[in-house]
Amino acid sequence: MNIGIDIGGTNIGAGLVDDKNNIICETSIPTNGHRTYEEVLKDMAKLVERLIRKSNISKDDVKGVGIGIPGIVDSSRGLAVEVVNLRWYKKNLKKDFEALIGYPVYIGNDATVAGLAEYKVGVMQGYNSGILYTLGTGIGAGIIINGRVYDGAHGIGSEVGHMIVGENFYNCNCGRNGCLETFASSTAIIKYTQKLINEGNITIMMKMAGGDIDRIDGRIIFEAAKIGDEVANLVVDRMVKYLAIGIVNTMCMIDPEVYVLGGGLSKAGDFLLDKVRQAVEKYRYFRGVDGGKIVLSKLGNGAGIIGAAALVD
Amino acid sequence: MNIGIDIGGTNIGAGLVDDKNNIICETSIPTNGHRTYEEVLKDMAKLVERLIRKSNISKDDVKGVGIGIPGIVDSSRGLAVEVVNLRWYKKNLKKDFEALIGYPVYIGNDATVAGLAEYKVGVMQGYNSGILYTLGTGIGAGIIINGRVYDGAHGIGSEVGHMIVGENFYNCNCGRNGCLETFASSTAIIKYTQKLINEGNITIMMKMAGGDIDRIDGRIIFEAAKIGDEVANLVVDRMVKYLAIGIVNTMCMIDPEVYVLGGGLSKAGDFLLDKVRQAVEKYRYFRGVDGGKIVLSKLGNGAGIIGAAALVD
Repeated sequence: MNIGIDIGGTNIGAGLVDDKNNIICETSIPTNGHRTYEEVLKDMAKLVERLIRKSNISKDDVKGVGIGIPGIVDSSRGLAVEVVNLRWYKKNLKKDFEALIGYPVYIGNDATVAGLAEYKVGVMQGYNSGILYTLGTGIGAGIIINGRVYDGAHGIGSEVGHMIVGENFYNCNCGRNGCLETFASSTAIIKYTQKLINEGNITIMMKMAGGDIDRIDGRIIFEAAKIGDEVANLVVDRMVKYLAIGIVNTMCMIDPEVYVLGGGLSKAGDFLLDKVRQAVEKYRYFRGVDGGKIVLSKLGNGAGIIGAAALVD
Repeated sequence: MNIGIDIGGTNIGAGLVDDKNNIICETSIPTNGHRTYEEVLKDMAKLVERLIRKSNISKDDVKGVGIGIPGIVDSSRGLAVEVVNLRWYKKNLKKDFEALIGYPVYIGNDATVAGLAEYKVGVMQGYNSGILYTLGTGIGAGIIINGRVYDGAHGIGSEVGHMIVGENFYNCNCGRNGCLETFASSTAIIKYTQKLINEGNITIMMKMAGGDIDRIDGRIIFEAAKIGDEVANLVVDRMVKYLAIGIVNTMCMIDPEVYVLGGGLSKAGDFLLDKVRQAVEKYRYFRGVDGGKIVLSKLGNGAGIIGAAALVD
């Protein structure tokens, strides 16, 4: 059995995971990310102790602990290189947490870990290579190559959200222009919707948001698009175009067997999936060659814990 | 010992390569690509026989034969999927050539094979991961991950020339707009130079090309840029900008230890290298993280044979 820890913005979740990737005991604690690194580590150690106590197992039944982190990770050296929300920079998380809990510790980026979960128990099962795109506030990725997590030589090999795919009307948080996540994340589609409304376009989305432009979110945009709202469809089509370019660019470099759409925006379901499939067919090259499958992710909230625990193996 | 075969546009080169990756005997034959698949295979079989005879070894001293192919390759199944110049489509090259010569046969894309050569005896030696960009008429790539060739699940995982990086004034051969090779190949910089000249810009390049705009090539463009010609520098800067975006996009997905500039345009040497390094520094993200080295390729004509032979191991 392994323990998986999933560090989220609101809560830190932890779970005891058996050898068949089932969560058999779960617990959590508020993240309170304003605190020091040491305080957060102590909380995580408490979660580990609590899981062992609650599940009535011996300490020796646990092989190791995996942690999914919302930032840049040097997994081979066990470093949390850059975790902006927690203000962790070049922290030797593996070593520090091992000292605290006495188990071997493995760390990974949160999207990477979610990709690993899809590979172990989700829609990437049975494939040798695949990529999960987490379409949320930003865009992350979990890449599996030859049945193993791939995150590059410096831990930035799954930062597909920062792939440049065109020119955009606003800059990315990273300071550059044209990053995929400025076209195809929820932040991106909200910004583009607000731009169209501010330019005088009429849309049902204003009514759906109670007249408050700042309450328009990804869910409202897709709901409006599904019932035929023109502005919402402009927004979705633009998102889909650039997401397809991002997928085709991945095809030019990684060419996996399967592409998985995950994260909050993937809740738009088949409506999004069908559009993305059509757009990828339009934008892809070498039509004589099979380009791989595109599917929706199927895992819910437990994915972070399952994937983190799977880092141990 | 292995035999490497390099199928070029003009000649098919073949060499006997020892276990230290030295070519100990070499031969070649004109490609004559207008002929049938069977005729070309017979010529390649002749090259293999000739090498064994010329080098005075026994047939059993050769372990296998590797072939570098200018097209899309499904290396795991041994298929030449799409080789436009030879009109080969879904040819079972491995099986067909094994039947002809009685050795195990391995095949790879020509840029992939050149990357493998850089890994075995060139500037990628000692690294665990790297990517070679072949900057020629088009742009190909040879990717090494975990010390092994990587070319994706369908053999299109090193087609970085077709990564979309912006919008361009002409379409790519593949029918799409914005492919990296329409910005940063020799074809691309010649087209952009001609465009600027046709728009009335004055440049020394016309004189260097004997007054014939169609004789301007990559060498002339870089020579003119080096002596300060304004138009040539506009062209080079635009090429470098998009090549840097291509490199940074590779960083977002593959994040290798080293990036190698090869192919005809890399003959511009440090003049090109310095500009590319500066531009990548400008375009890259996550500045707290080491992004990998950028270097010039060092192998000459033998790379194709050495890399093809290395496919056997």
